[in-house]
Amino acid sequence: MSIQQAQSGIDAATYVRQQAELAHRASRRLAMCTTAEKNAALGRIAQAIQAHAPRILAANALDMEAGRAAGMGTKLDRLLLTEERIQVICRDIGNVAELPDPVNEDIDGRTRPNGLRVRRVRVPLGVVGIIYEARPNVTVDAAVLALKSGNAVVLKGGSDALHSNRAIVVAIREGLGEGAVSGNTVPADAVQLLDATDRAVTAAFLRMRGLIDVIIPRGGLELIRFAQEHATVPVIETGASVVHAYVDEHVDVAQAVDLIENSKCRRVSICNALDTLLVHRAVLPRLAPALGARLAQAHPAVEVRADKAALAALRGHLPADRLRPLEAARDYGTEFLDYILAVGTVGSLMEAVDHIDRYSLKHTEAIFTTDAAQALLFQRAVDAACVIHNASTQFTDGGEFGLGAEIGISTQKLHVRGPFALEGLTTMKWIVDGTGQLRP
Amino acid sequence: MSIQQAQSGIDAATYVRQQAELAHRASRRLAMCTTAEKNAALGRIAQAIQAHAPRILAANALDMEAGRAAGMGTKLDRLLLTEERIQVICRDIGNVAELPDPVNEDIDGRTRPNGLRVRRVRVPLGVVGIIYEARPNVTVDAAVLALKSGNAVVLKGGSDALHSNRAIVVAIREGLGEGAVSGNTVPADAVQLLDATDRAVTAAFLRMRGLIDVIIPRGGLELIRFAQEHATVPVIETGASVVHAYVDEHVDVAQAVDLIENSKCRRVSICNALDTLLVHRAVLPRLAPALGARLAQAHPAVEVRADKAALAALRGHLPADRLRPLEAARDYGTEFLDYILAVGTVGSLMEAVDHIDRYSLKHTEAIFTTDAAQALLFQRAVDAACVIHNASTQFTDGGEFGLGAEIGISTQKLHVRGPFALEGLTTMKWIVDGTGQLRP
Repeated sequence: MSIQQAQSGIDAATYVRQQAELAHRASRRLAMCTTAEKNAALGRIAQAIQAHAPRILAANALDMEAGRAAGMGTKLDRLLLTEERIQVICRDIGNVAELPDPVNEDIDGRTRPNGLRVRRVRVPLGVVGIIYEARPNVTVDAAVLALKSGNAVVLKGGSDALHSNRAIVVAIREGLGEGAVSGNTVPADAVQLLDATDRAVTAAFLRMRGLIDVIIPRGGLELIRFAQEHATVPVIETGASVVHAYVDEHVDVAQAVDLIENSKCRRVSICNALDTLLVHRAVLPRLAPALGARLAQAHPAVEVRADKAALAALRGHLPADRLRPLEAARDYGTEFLDYILAVGTVGSLMEAVDHIDRYSLKHTEAIFTTDAAQALLFQRAVDAACVIHNASTQFTDGGEFGLGAEIGISTQKLHVRGPFALEGLTTMKWIVDGTGQLRP
Repeated sequence: MSIQQAQSGIDAATYVRQQAELAHRASRRLAMCTTAEKNAALGRIAQAIQAHAPRILAANALDMEAGRAAGMGTKLDRLLLTEERIQVICRDIGNVAELPDPVNEDIDGRTRPNGLRVRRVRVPLGVVGIIYEARPNVTVDAAVLALKSGNAVVLKGGSDALHSNRAIVVAIREGLGEGAVSGNTVPADAVQLLDATDRAVTAAFLRMRGLIDVIIPRGGLELIRFAQEHATVPVIETGASVVHAYVDEHVDVAQAVDLIENSKCRRVSICNALDTLLVHRAVLPRLAPALGARLAQAHPAVEVRADKAALAALRGHLPADRLRPLEAARDYGTEFLDYILAVGTVGSLMEAVDHIDRYSLKHTEAIFTTDAAQALLFQRAVDAACVIHNASTQFTDGGEFGLGAEIGISTQKLHVRGPFALEGLTTMKWIVDGTGQLRP
């Protein structure tokens, strides 16, 4: 039994449980696989995706057609697969195969005075669940990173990409030898797709405690909140953010303007894009003219929502229709995902830190300053996954940080924080070896 | 404002929020304290507890009297404080002060090709919540471990120990300089006691997301389940367990009997005590006579609930009233916390592994064997926090594993697993230092 539709008459919880049990059973075999076996499986997956490319593209065309009809607009590009994008996906699989395998690595160890040998060994989590939206490439990414770290995976993609995801998972499972006797290699059941568009399936998935070891929701704040409310399975929250940058009194204004523009405008729809700029009062008169002019040049020009002092300083440097008074209740603490920037004025670094403490979702925060002591203080005082000094906030990314891959950017404090990849998909166990020791 | 009673007219959620906000504010100052400042604070706490000993003992006498009246039985000993126990508590504070401070340690770091310096630094979690039962010494332990790792702490002790806990927290806060101008040192508000016996307070505590960073329930399965059901704050589950030991075909029978007795009988009321023994069919005839005789000698003699084959083999080696037929639905998967042992027979190591996969709460599992290859296979195949070969299951303990302390034994896979102490009370952040880098 492979992909199965919830519509076949069984209820959501029963359907999810069946898929989760298949994944759980597969995960136990997968945990015993060697690195070579896992890498060989990744190679076969890439081949199968290559071979299935025409069918995957045909399925994607159905999703694109439905997306166009539904008026998906700018999100359509994230849904689109092309020959070239499939090449990139396959190349990325090869990159993951080349990453070091974190599993079975000794983390530490010691011999106790009574002769007990105690050590911690890294092991897979077991079954990883991923809930994501309209990006079919995540189907491959998530499956490949889970398998490389020894985990089975249960995927719940967005309904917009359901045809594409089905075709991709058929290819992946064929690569894993579905139907064939696959001996001691990675079992096909290690990759499951929840083939349903029903919210009840997502809710049941989040409550599959004991069979699913962790669920990673990848999406907006609404999805994260839904997961918080419904999950009994442990969750790694990712993605939602309100990104602040603080421009200190002592700053290279030209550099700050470059950094603000890049942080805001390079891509506005991603979680590390700047939302709120906090400016030290003393630097506002020097910063505002250059910043206003620069943001006015962006395409489209950035809408600035400025507090009283910033509004006065920016007036005349941005088109009147791109400059509005800030409403704290609406604009602070908002993830815009658009060409909108909130600008507030503060009297000190600690005031900026307090503002961030109040409104941050603890993803990425930045300080732009030439004063190293102030930067250090900011980096210690701000509680967030990534605290950046004099670089664009858009650097928060697994690839940019040198992880070689990324499954998400965790905004929680437990287990993993910030960009994470293979190591975040593992846990450890204590292995104790004795010679008959009894505890006194 | 220090300890405050929920009975003062405000509702549970408002009361808990007030205490959590005080702790959150204190946590931000505490995160900036140096190791020396934190250690000095621990020293002052020990002095204050010493000085307050008469008041603490008088408060404890009230709890003991109420406990006796309520028929607490064997749990009374856990509630009791004495001069000597207070000495031990103070000595333990000194031991924690001497442990290495995990905070501000660089975990790793690299310079990216674009010149960005990216590193991960260990930081406190923020505010740690602890829910525990009738052991007032936990009040000190938890507060001291939280402070040493740079966290504020909100304590919710058992109602049985409320007088003792109040007196202890008054002493701790006095040690932290409550009322005095304490400059840059650890603020007294870093330690809060939820002074209430109301279940609604516990429920509100578990939902204080954003102000409490993690809650550690220390207690039985009922408390853990309550936390799973109500928590929106991330939880580190501790303590609940069903411990298995598997006796392999190739085994030193005399050693196995010693290990089983120690695993079961050394202390029966703790989470690492043996619950279910799985015996390879081939070794049953050799093991049963010696094991039956040994368990009959325990005080009190252990009640054995044996499956059909084990029952036949054990008959005549245990008093008739200590040997009963096993009922799988009742006895497998049960944490007995008593002089009761379930004994099942299996035909192979993998059958034992499958049994454990079905019934384990993933705390501690053991194999007793002279066959190193079988031990290795068991240790890889069994998914649990601690997998022990040829030693008592009762070794699962932070002190015994060399951690120097223990705040609990995590039975979950995320963040920490098995015994944990200071490092488990920390998270990390990414610190990025640039020179104006823009992301292409």
